[in-house]
Amino acid sequence: MMSAVAVASTGSPADTRQRLIDAAIALFIRHSFAGTSLQMIADELGFTKAAIYHHFRTREQLLTAILEPIINRVAAVVEDAEQQRGVHARAERMINGYARLAVESPMLVSVLAADPSVHTVLKANREWTHIISRQMVLLADVHPGPEGFIRAQFVFAGIAGSADPKRAADDEWLHAQLLDAGRKALGLRTPRRTSPQ
Amino acid sequence: MMSAVAVASTGSPADTRQRLIDAAIALFIRHSFAGTSLQMIADELGFTKAAIYHHFRTREQLLTAILEPIINRVAAVVEDAEQQRGVHARAERMINGYARLAVESPMLVSVLAADPSVHTVLKANREWTHIISRQMVLLADVHPGPEGFIRAQFVFAGIAGSADPKRAADDEWLHAQLLDAGRKALGLRTPRRTSPQ
Repeated sequence: MMSAVAVASTGSPADTRQRLIDAAIALFIRHSFAGTSLQMIADELGFTKAAIYHHFRTREQLLTAILEPIINRVAAVVEDAEQQRGVHARAERMINGYARLAVESPMLVSVLAADPSVHTVLKANREWTHIISRQMVLLADVHPGPEGFIRAQFVFAGIAGSADPKRAADDEWLHAQLLDAGRKALGLRTPRRTSPQ
Repeated sequence: MMSAVAVASTGSPADTRQRLIDAAIALFIRHSFAGTSLQMIADELGFTKAAIYHHFRTREQLLTAILEPIINRVAAVVEDAEQQRGVHARAERMINGYARLAVESPMLVSVLAADPSVHTVLKANREWTHIISRQMVLLADVHPGPEGFIRAQFVFAGIAGSADPKRAADDEWLHAQLLDAGRKALGLRTPRRTSPQ
């Protein structure tokens, strides 16, 4: 096999960018965002720091490139859920979509939901804060008062913290588990199937 | 057991040690363990680094001093729960005790459960890994097969992620909320009250 450096020099810029992102996510999972330097990412891939600077000037730029796609997907779920009729149907759709994201991108959802240093960066972005606030409200509306927010946080943290593909036979099974646990924690009934999801 | 912070202004070594621990936890919550240096803790308190070295030689020693009391309390809950008769009674007792720890020490439980860099340190300690594994089994036994572990992870992550005192009128109310959400996610019935808890 060619060395990582040789591969990097022949790979397209888009490939290199994606490899940087993938290596960064894996390091964030182990060391947290705050504990991962651009130098560590360079070392992991056998790149020079200059090769990284070509794509990302700062760690924050790299984090934004990582979070933006998953937050856009959360936003799409939120917008779809907000269009449902009735509080319970909206909560059901939000849990369903969030569980889908967690199954498809468990590492990303875990970085997004659980890394305290990522949380600090998230809170500094008003647009992102607004999406996460709408995501919360969709579940919180099921129970009036502060109970609603506790339940909503419980469900999102539960889904993000248990979407473990190593424990799952397949994605559909895992999705059904997370959806069912989320419904039960929130006190939603299992809906009659009226349309494919 | 954790002692409440004594009045710090007297400046005894025990007070200084506790102030270091409190400042470290607050910084871990914001920046993660991996993103917090001893220098940052020194700056936060206006200490010299030498003053910190007098108490903790490394960041890992400081983290151990922080985690040991809470893990000892988890161990006490696990041991109590394991003595109950029947799978459901054991799970009930484990959720109840874990929710109590989360309400009393939300920052500590959040560091323990959610910081990926802390997780890396935890996994290197065999005794701690053993306690956490027993904690998981107490809930996982409620459902056979891989479903049990998914549900158990869901409940612990949910409790750790939603024990937010800012949302709660008082500790008893918050504890009741977390316990109820945990029971429902796991499919436990609300037990008839037979003994005070």
